[in-house]
Amino acid sequence: MKRLKATIAYDGSGFAGYQVQPDKRTVQLELMNVLKTIHKGKVVQVVASGRTDAKVHATGQVIHFDTAFSIPMTGWIKALNVLLPEDIRVNAIEEVDASFHARYHTTGKTYRYKWNRSQIISPFTRNLMVHIKQPLDVEAMTIAAQALIGTYDFSSFCAANTAVVDKVRTVRRLEFEEHGDELHMIIEGSGFLYNMVRIIAGTLTEVGTGKRAADELSRIVAATDRDAAGKTAAAHGLYLESVMYES
Amino acid sequence: MKRLKATIAYDGSGFAGYQVQPDKRTVQLELMNVLKTIHKGKVVQVVASGRTDAKVHATGQVIHFDTAFSIPMTGWIKALNVLLPEDIRVNAIEEVDASFHARYHTTGKTYRYKWNRSQIISPFTRNLMVHIKQPLDVEAMTIAAQALIGTYDFSSFCAANTAVVDKVRTVRRLEFEEHGDELHMIIEGSGFLYNMVRIIAGTLTEVGTGKRAADELSRIVAATDRDAAGKTAAAHGLYLESVMYES
Repeated sequence: MKRLKATIAYDGSGFAGYQVQPDKRTVQLELMNVLKTIHKGKVVQVVASGRTDAKVHATGQVIHFDTAFSIPMTGWIKALNVLLPEDIRVNAIEEVDASFHARYHTTGKTYRYKWNRSQIISPFTRNLMVHIKQPLDVEAMTIAAQALIGTYDFSSFCAANTAVVDKVRTVRRLEFEEHGDELHMIIEGSGFLYNMVRIIAGTLTEVGTGKRAADELSRIVAATDRDAAGKTAAAHGLYLESVMYES
Repeated sequence: MKRLKATIAYDGSGFAGYQVQPDKRTVQLELMNVLKTIHKGKVVQVVASGRTDAKVHATGQVIHFDTAFSIPMTGWIKALNVLLPEDIRVNAIEEVDASFHARYHTTGKTYRYKWNRSQIISPFTRNLMVHIKQPLDVEAMTIAAQALIGTYDFSSFCAANTAVVDKVRTVRRLEFEEHGDELHMIIEGSGFLYNMVRIIAGTLTEVGTGKRAADELSRIVAATDRDAAGKTAAAHGLYLESVMYES
């Protein structure tokens, strides 16, 4: 058996999220269906770095699976992309050590959140960015974001209905990029709690529109209370951009 | 009554084309439904510069309609965009003379055709560009295109099943733009026959891949025979970019 690690992209618009759910179209189900076809009906388990929610996109999700087949890596990419629906693409694949685990061995992840600030959003990007018409004070958002960089208990930025006990995470990078009408938030961390990136995006948006002060973030972190933070930003602005592993 | 001219954009992916057809989702039907709502149940006719086929996009389609309502133009844009589905957007609206006609008074149109030449197409643009993996000789395509600029009988570039008798049209501009992996063909003319832009795109692609010589285009035009030209390029690469009127 060989263990293969693949880097995949998907447009989350047409999926009920990454993980298999009964009677729903999910990324994992599409991957498993294709691997089953390639393996002549044999079920192949697929492990991802983590789930993504309905409508959330990925440009650099990582998965692993095991196979007895000896196909060159370029052959794997071609075969998978021919069989997969066009809203999932395999961009890279490599053989890894049998001990590699896409989920357990992550050392970090980068997410990108995209807003579009044009007066009228383009019909072509309606599912790929979140339209925001109010002017955003990006400088205030950048200042506010500094309070989130570091190692903290991020309970205030975690969906209330989660079973995770240890809510301490490290945010290594949190910055904004402006590309014309687009505003991107890039966040890199050791790992993220459920909805953490979207709650951070939503809270910083409230700073951007003047609803909250830029110096409020430290108090929100200290509160360790979901109610202290802002709204959860919409799913369709979020992209899983890369997953890091020990090299 | 006032006559209003609106410039609209739509993502053609979810439509069976512009024009109303029984039991199909079309752009015209969505526009008429919204205008009917605004006009409290009264049917309002909508006239476009011309039809676009299923999957074809528009960034600058022009329509006109008549209304007895006195709403400021910014109010019209807001009302229409609130009521329209997100894959249609109204980008501009203005009051015009009652004699203006979106279809009869056009003096020209510009279309853009988009190819993506990356090895693996992004899942996010799969419905917005045509993926082409073979290398394209853009210089040969540009040279070949020169034979199409001018006033000719474009019968060779017209779908065979058309009722139009006069197939003489003027192409004013036909050029290529490269944006990284993207290749765009921009074509401006007095008017276009059915499938004309897509047959030109398909034929020039065949020059680009070396299947046809760059100097073949004059002979193809002279043949006035659909079979002399190349394949009709896929619909989802095509954008109606602008419509010109006498000012």
